Amino acid sequence: MKPNILIVNDDGIQSPGIQALANAMENIGSITIVAPEQEQSAKSHSITLNDPIRLKLVTLKRGLKGWSVKGTPVDCAKIALKSLFKKKEPDLLISGINLGSNLGKNLIYSGTISAAFEGTILGIPSAAISLDSFQAKDFTAAKHVSISIATYLLKNNLPRGTMLNVNIPYLQKNKIKGFRVTKQGKSGFIDTFEKRVDPRGESYFWIKGEIGKPDSSIEFDGEAISNGYVSITPIEFDLTNKRFINKLKKDLKYD
Amino acid sequence: MKPNILIVNDDGIQSPGIQALANAMENIGSITIVAPEQEQSAKSHSITLNDPIRLKLVTLKRGLKGWSVKGTPVDCAKIALKSLFKKKEPDLLISGINLGSNLGKNLIYSGTISAAFEGTILGIPSAAISLDSFQAKDFTAAKHVSISIATYLLKNNLPRGTMLNVNIPYLQKNKIKGFRVTKQGKSGFIDTFEKRVDPRGESYFWIKGEIGKPDSSIEFDGEAISNGYVSITPIEFDLTNKRFINKLKKDLKYD
Repeated sequence: MKPNILIVNDDGIQSPGIQALANAMENIGSITIVAPEQEQSAKSHSITLNDPIRLKLVTLKRGLKGWSVKGTPVDCAKIALKSLFKKKEPDLLISGINLGSNLGKNLIYSGTISAAFEGTILGIPSAAISLDSFQAKDFTAAKHVSISIATYLLKNNLPRGTMLNVNIPYLQKNKIKGFRVTKQGKSGFIDTFEKRVDPRGESYFWIKGEIGKPDSSIEFDGEAISNGYVSITPIEFDLTNKRFINKLKKDLKYD
Repeated sequence: MKPNILIVNDDGIQSPGIQALANAMENIGSITIVAPEQEQSAKSHSITLNDPIRLKLVTLKRGLKGWSVKGTPVDCAKIALKSLFKKKEPDLLISGINLGSNLGKNLIYSGTISAAFEGTILGIPSAAISLDSFQAKDFTAAKHVSISIATYLLKNNLPRGTMLNVNIPYLQKNKIKGFRVTKQGKSGFIDTFEKRVDPRGESYFWIKGEIGKPDSSIEFDGEAISNGYVSITPIEFDLTNKRFINKLKKDLKYD
């Protein structure tokens, strides 16, 4: 029997990236698309507690059907796994294909990553796939990589609580040098705020990000894709700094 | 000179928790409050990219002044550190006092944690402080703990990229057994969706969470507070599962 593959994203259900991912996944499984009605970039792991969440079955380009969700990327993964797949869990969750990479410190802001993490939390093998271009038109290489990653995940077990963060350079398929298993880098956006005044004379701010200094080594995610590799980072959500526990125990006294 | 202390939260600028924290911090430093206009629970590390962010100086109870932000908890920390404190960075950032604990897997959803993490990312010693009660009225013990933690952070260096996640049991000060340095637990909410139908006949969903199985040992955050200790977890944002890198390198082939 064909594996069931749940497809989510944060760019919204009409994004070309999710369509490309759906087309790729149709080759290897039976797909269900559940994605936000509108773009939800930088929503991180936020969930909707104070508003009702609505689901609507819509038709995408090329006749694909998908569930459009008024909510965040994590809402999409959660409602799919808890409500739509009530009886039979999917065999795989893939989030993407995101337009723009998800690297280094920026992982913390990413809805693409968080939607996949929600799958991991609920015990589903999961991956986030991002393409290093905000204006990508050609998804040939990214589809090829997505199929490889999905096939790997269907055949192999990840450690409990771990997912794959996959970033693909925007290159022709034959220009990609291969897979590189990497560590999450330390670089990220450096944000500034641009102050403006509205027509009523009130000030407001826009967040502006510039890309910070790149990491020093190809061991890290950002440098790997800069050098033409697909970067694959196994990530997990255990934040404890275990190296610091003993010192803190010694230093911190309750009185 | 008095240290400058930046105070943020996710419950909103009118929350009793932020007022209690501000009152406590006034004893040891010069405070600046920057908090969301409205409650922003479960906003995780989301930032506002598609809407303008607005800042307004408001008066809180007891005559305290604070900046009210139309944005997420991370927007508050970011705009404070990048715009309000342009010339002189604060010596400390404290996020809280949150009504309700932030433990185990739930850390990923927490705006309280994320607002403090934003300080850590920008190099400011930071802590998130949560009180294990949604309806807390008595902040005496929590204020005492907040002063201890702030004093510790002003005198000691945390490792780069590490912050403290502090959870306080809702007990009288003399009933608290002391500090316990802990690890992030594995337990968390188990979410379900409640389906309803609106007056127009359209269905919608609410997320409902139940608390999952507790952790087995007092080494973990949730069990420590259940046993009457203040739980203090040093956390950092490096998600790489380093134990899995070599196996993945061997198993995953590009073709």
